[in-house]
Amino acid sequence: MTQTPQDTELKTDRSRLRRAHEKGSYDRDSLYAVLDAMPMCHIGYQINGTPSVLPTLQWREGDHVYWHGSSASRAIRAMDGADVCMTVTILDGYVLSRSAFHHSVNHRSAMIFGRPEKVTDPTAKETHLKTMVDMIFPDRWDSLRPMTDQELKATALLRMPISEGAAKVRTGPPVDDDEDYALPIWAGVVPMSLQLHHPEPDPANLQSVVMPDHLSRIRIG
Amino acid sequence: MTQTPQDTELKTDRSRLRRAHEKGSYDRDSLYAVLDAMPMCHIGYQINGTPSVLPTLQWREGDHVYWHGSSASRAIRAMDGADVCMTVTILDGYVLSRSAFHHSVNHRSAMIFGRPEKVTDPTAKETHLKTMVDMIFPDRWDSLRPMTDQELKATALLRMPISEGAAKVRTGPPVDDDEDYALPIWAGVVPMSLQLHHPEPDPANLQSVVMPDHLSRIRIG
Repeated sequence: MTQTPQDTELKTDRSRLRRAHEKGSYDRDSLYAVLDAMPMCHIGYQINGTPSVLPTLQWREGDHVYWHGSSASRAIRAMDGADVCMTVTILDGYVLSRSAFHHSVNHRSAMIFGRPEKVTDPTAKETHLKTMVDMIFPDRWDSLRPMTDQELKATALLRMPISEGAAKVRTGPPVDDDEDYALPIWAGVVPMSLQLHHPEPDPANLQSVVMPDHLSRIRIG
Repeated sequence: MTQTPQDTELKTDRSRLRRAHEKGSYDRDSLYAVLDAMPMCHIGYQINGTPSVLPTLQWREGDHVYWHGSSASRAIRAMDGADVCMTVTILDGYVLSRSAFHHSVNHRSAMIFGRPEKVTDPTAKETHLKTMVDMIFPDRWDSLRPMTDQELKATALLRMPISEGAAKVRTGPPVDDDEDYALPIWAGVVPMSLQLHHPEPDPANLQSVVMPDHLSRIRIG
């Protein structure tokens, strides 16, 4: 999934590193690794002049990021052509240090700034939605009841070029003040990860239906 | 942790239900259950007139929500006294239906709108930071090297009343179009949850230091 476009450097002056031991990356590979690992994102936008943050799913195709919603959604209408910020965050662990001050969180995050625009061509929309489904649930699309024209009309699709943003990654043990390493205080990391559990079939499934192989290929985080 | 204040209804007209089978809740108990289960949040704010979304940790004390950052942080300064939106999202599962259109995500989310203000009194700040540490890492604060005045000055603390917002919860199997239940397509839920793994001690820990009991009481999600 990783791509290596020609302009690997991303513009950014709005994404800041909050701690010296965080690693900030302005190359596309680092950013794309976070986007491709976690569809869950939070999109900041303005509605009636006030900030709002929408949780939704994103997916990346090349140097663009996509998300969708209801055509009737006020959020989608407010985002179309306006400045937005998309943030993806993956929690990897709690970092427990010897002082309250140096406690931290191991994480991978991506932040992208830009202006999305609607994809309106029905054929293009359907192709992108197929890509979404097949990225999150590998090869599921072809097993589904085909999308109807009405469903396609009811679905709004936004697309945003990835041109300004950054990735941030924090890994490893706590970083304490030099003199605190002599203290008899337990320090370390409590790792965490999002785990997928055994699929629960819909009780309404037909008896003849078996669990498809593609479920075992779902990945997240 | 659940509280039952007198005004249990939250104002909201900005939080919308995107799907009919999602359950929206405007009572404090539903909202607080999400906030108390997941410290990870995303805060939308404006900086130089542009939306930005900061991932950080929140904690609730009564009818207020708190978060902290560096006193030098541009984000913290931009949030102080300004309109912000805090969103907390917990992923509980992928919902796979018989059509692409009805795929969904089981989740619990909370959205709060308001204007935070800085807590500046050093004693109050330290008390709130102790509450944060002890909520995320039960009873850890007293085992730590005490906070210094300099660290307290370097830490900015924001507090926001919880007065406008909503919780949204989606649970259960997919909801398909009536006629699609006759199709031989596997539908169901792939549950997911954030799992804590075995603590990894800092290699720099003193040999005499043992793993504290409070690590086993950490909860998330």
